[in-house]
Amino acid sequence: MTFRQRHLLGIEQLRPEEIKTVLDLADSYVDLNRSTQKRSDVLAGLTQINMFFENSTRTQASFEIAGKRLGADVMNMAMQASSIKKGETLIDTALTLNAMHPDLLVVRHPHSGAVNLLAEKVNCAVLNAGDGKHEHPTQALLDALTIRREKGRLHRLTIAICGDIAHSRVARSNLILLGKMENRVRLVGPPTLMPSQIDQFGVEVYGDMEEGLRDADVVMMLRLQRERMDGGFIPSEREYYHRFGLDAEKLAHARPDAIVMHPGPMNRGVEIDGTIADDINRSVIQEQVEMGVAVRMAAMDLLARNLRAERAAQPEDVYV
Amino acid sequence: MTFRQRHLLGIEQLRPEEIKTVLDLADSYVDLNRSTQKRSDVLAGLTQINMFFENSTRTQASFEIAGKRLGADVMNMAMQASSIKKGETLIDTALTLNAMHPDLLVVRHPHSGAVNLLAEKVNCAVLNAGDGKHEHPTQALLDALTIRREKGRLHRLTIAICGDIAHSRVARSNLILLGKMENRVRLVGPPTLMPSQIDQFGVEVYGDMEEGLRDADVVMMLRLQRERMDGGFIPSEREYYHRFGLDAEKLAHARPDAIVMHPGPMNRGVEIDGTIADDINRSVIQEQVEMGVAVRMAAMDLLARNLRAERAAQPEDVYV
Amino acid sequence: MTFRQRHLLGIEQLRPEEIKTVLDLADSYVDLNRSTQKRSDVLAGLTQINMFFENSTRTQASFEIAGKRLGADVMNMAMQASSIKKGETLIDTALTLNAMHPDLLVVRHPHSGAVNLLAEKVNCAVLNAGDGKHEHPTQALLDALTIRREKGRLHRLTIAICGDIAHSRVARSNLILLGKMENRVRLVGPPTLMPSQIDQFGVEVYGDMEEGLRDADVVMMLRLQRERMDGGFIPSEREYYHRFGLDAEKLAHARPDAIVMHPGPMNRGVEIDGTIADDINRSVIQEQVEMGVAVRMAAMDLLARNLRAERAAQPEDVYV
Repeated sequence: MTFRQRHLLGIEQLRPEEIKTVLDLADSYVDLNRSTQKRSDVLAGLTQINMFFENSTRTQASFEIAGKRLGADVMNMAMQASSIKKGETLIDTALTLNAMHPDLLVVRHPHSGAVNLLAEKVNCAVLNAGDGKHEHPTQALLDALTIRREKGRLHRLTIAICGDIAHSRVARSNLILLGKMENRVRLVGPPTLMPSQIDQFGVEVYGDMEEGLRDADVVMMLRLQRERMDGGFIPSEREYYHRFGLDAEKLAHARPDAIVMHPGPMNRGVEIDGTIADDINRSVIQEQVEMGVAVRMAAMDLLARNLRAERAAQPEDVYV
Repeated sequence: MTFRQRHLLGIEQLRPEEIKTVLDLADSYVDLNRSTQKRSDVLAGLTQINMFFENSTRTQASFEIAGKRLGADVMNMAMQASSIKKGETLIDTALTLNAMHPDLLVVRHPHSGAVNLLAEKVNCAVLNAGDGKHEHPTQALLDALTIRREKGRLHRLTIAICGDIAHSRVARSNLILLGKMENRVRLVGPPTLMPSQIDQFGVEVYGDMEEGLRDADVVMMLRLQRERMDGGFIPSEREYYHRFGLDAEKLAHARPDAIVMHPGPMNRGVEIDGTIADDINRSVIQEQVEMGVAVRMAAMDLLARNLRAERAAQPEDVYV
Repeated sequence: MTFRQRHLLGIEQLRPEEIKTVLDLADSYVDLNRSTQKRSDVLAGLTQINMFFENSTRTQASFEIAGKRLGADVMNMAMQASSIKKGETLIDTALTLNAMHPDLLVVRHPHSGAVNLLAEKVNCAVLNAGDGKHEHPTQALLDALTIRREKGRLHRLTIAICGDIAHSRVARSNLILLGKMENRVRLVGPPTLMPSQIDQFGVEVYGDMEEGLRDADVVMMLRLQRERMDGGFIPSEREYYHRFGLDAEKLAHARPDAIVMHPGPMNRGVEIDGTIADDINRSVIQEQVEMGVAVRMAAMDLLARNLRAERAAQPEDVYV
């Protein structure tokens, strides 16, 4: 098994074999989660802290369930209502937690790069649960697992990522991952919602859904992130839906067996038609959530193995 | 043991033998909770999620303690601060959670019927922790257990339910349960706080505490639910206490060994005199709380047995 | 081992041998926390409830980690958003929780004496996690452990407690503890931030940092508690820092091997210079946090032993 990471900060840092390792292990956790006795002890004796500086019921729940099923002691820290308000800096908060000897620190933060900064200051393994517009690696991994299970492979697929690309760390992590696995990635959306530097990723850009979806194997819709739009052109929801919302007509341009994805929570009738979202022959949205728990179990399991190996290799006083 | 339910949505659905099964099992959990080593593993390997769309410290704490003492992995989701705000529907939220494979879903919701609707959409066992003015089955069960332990039986008793009946799911679940067990139930309160259709329950209605309490074995007070009163006559607290607040004088009309109950949290000096509430010879209010944990342990234990049996009986792919 | 307490309400109640017992046991938990398999079962089968009527991310996290690592079932109750708002009294809330049979109740409350009052009403062991301006015993114990480990002893040391003494339960618990262990304690700060009755503690009072720090072994800074100042003179932060903020120049008057402490969260540039706080040769601020978890584990372990012994000694019906 190849997984050489100390942290899971972004897809950027992962080699294709490492991505494969996470997904293979996650497959086995899918089976565990579907069984009635869904408990392992691979994280027993370890402390997992979820530090969410942004609210996210579903992602936090997914990490919490993942950790508890693996036997970790899991703690949630609601960082809004916390010491942050008392004027403490992010680094001081991190160092304080670090002194309590957590083993796994799951962090969501509104600023790009905050999680990387934090990882430099602590002794434990840090998992990025989304930082600003930067990365959301477990989302990309769960999307990859969903695609691989549905399509039987994770390469040479045509994947259209549609909508509000500019504000989306989901899109960013996905296009890095899908590029590494040698897929053909298209970005589809209005020019105002496209990131400024796209060229580096070697993707195709479309301003039109019909063209962008043509013969696609996977149609990945994004949430319209109104809360992250600061100024600039904001389309009306109605107009947006008309041009970029996924409905049966637009989906007809994709391959007949194309799957439809969405990271949730959905704005029905804005970026996606409710009928499409509920169509169990096309939509894999629930499966994405299911894969999320499994992928997070796999990622924490692998990081914990590396942590244990690292600690076993060094004299105690160095670790302290 | 007879308990054929997949969910615990209301007292409405339970047969008298099933009520008895829950109470008998709860009796044994009372003993466990009073011991120092209060831990079982009947829910080990199962995931319990508490979804409270309305705040309730005491009910949520009771379910959380119940689940943890039985070895479940327990998660609380604060639904106010959640995806709901991001425009997600109740059903989408439920389907998302369902995809994470919980086994027991404890739900409180401000709308009557919301929990039943949710139960239709998920694969796990759902427990109603209170929905609008509809039902609050574990409250009625804990009240029944308290009465049975205090009175030695749960039938042929005269029970006066007093106060704000109209807004009370506690009253509703209680009068269904007490009716099924062949007790004589009286509703006592001002006409403005009586529900519109009472006839169906075959109860006696009193507008006067002296008459309503005469020879009662059990006096069950309700909380004045100001937060649920939308328009209509709202009595002043002082006037309400004068006419319907339980004090020594009014209680004197009940049987000398009558017990006093209240679901909490109490408004002392509004619906009940503090001295009565604290009188350990009459008040069983603390015991109700204690029975609450035991009844919830019993209910979750029974539902988990049915869940395991159901899953064992069906091929895996059907379950998925 | 000598520890005869039923509760941990304050340092006031502890004899020097009992303080030593807590610290000795805490030393062993430091080792556990630094290991990779940081799990014991000394609290298995017990229920710990954290009731925080004031927000405190770090103290609550410390108690939660401590309880989970010892195998307790741990519950957090966010008391602001709770029944308190529905008009329930503190005592009713306590009695309600008590009826759920917790074993360890960790309480923080804004009013001095509230935790002692609560302890009289419940059957379980109560730990004071800070009450008003009264006591914060685990903070004083963790500070004592840090000093003892750094200085090799906990007696005959010169310790300067500096800053906002008047509003600080941390200062109060510390000066009681350090006095009991026969140290020389100095209080340093502006007269407006000194408590009115200091004479009882037999301490020296300084209005000047240079004098107050002269030859000190330990410099203990306090957080400026603006939120607890109701009227009266409030210095500007800049002026305060100039006269009482700890910087290299002021610290130069202490002993060359003097350690610098702060209970956190810090106001960098107000009561302490950031460079001093981060100087790993002088500052033991992170170590204080680390000792906090260990001290709380030790305190809960000792209280649980007494609880078990007490229950074993009495017939069951008395306990109930």
